[in-house]
Amino acid sequence: MNGVNINQIQFDKITGLIPAITQDYRKKKVLMLAYMNKESLEKTIETGYVHYWSRSRNKLWMKGETSGNTQRVKEIIMDCDNDAILLLIDQKGPACHTGHETCFYKKVKIEA
Amino acid sequence: MNGVNINQIQFDKITGLIPAITQDYRKKKVLMLAYMNKESLEKTIETGYVHYWSRSRNKLWMKGETSGNTQRVKEIIMDCDNDAILLLIDQKGPACHTGHETCFYKKVKIEA
Repeated sequence: MNGVNINQIQFDKITGLIPAITQDYRKKKVLMLAYMNKESLEKTIETGYVHYWSRSRNKLWMKGETSGNTQRVKEIIMDCDNDAILLLIDQKGPACHTGHETCFYKKVKIEA
Repeated sequence: MNGVNINQIQFDKITGLIPAITQDYRKKKVLMLAYMNKESLEKTIETGYVHYWSRSRNKLWMKGETSGNTQRVKEIIMDCDNDAILLLIDQKGPACHTGHETCFYKKVKIEA
């Protein structure tokens, strides 16, 4: 697998953010999509636990810092354009603040 | 599973876009992250094939329209905040324009 250095990552020029997808490394379920800035990615790498940038609260947060539902990093993978991240993680408890296992639980009605 | 109507989806107020993750419905591999506007989501639902909004070319495109590597929709799932979409799909050929099976193929070096 090709390698990439953190300095090659294309954070958005205006917001400084990159979308980060988390996937359960065992069950392969997609758990959530949130955003990282450079600092949160560095913290994630440094600590081994996923840190995001909260766009609503405008601050760095470690997933699970209040709920205890932390995300331990197993692997970090960039996409071809270096502008999206996939994190394979070990999720403690439910990923979603609603108590669902994953944030993706609402089926879109395809029929009219 | 809870249901959601397309009108409940929170497209970004400024860009009109929502991030869309595609995942292979059989192998569960995350294939790519791209963006949709309302029109591309409607086209996706209407045709059963994934359509995105290209931010660089500023136009609607059907994935695979030139390469033939189309994405047939199996399921569309919204997240808790209605601001990200997960599409379970049947991918024809490689998902990535580089020829890789998935766009996520660059491992981020975690050690300094």
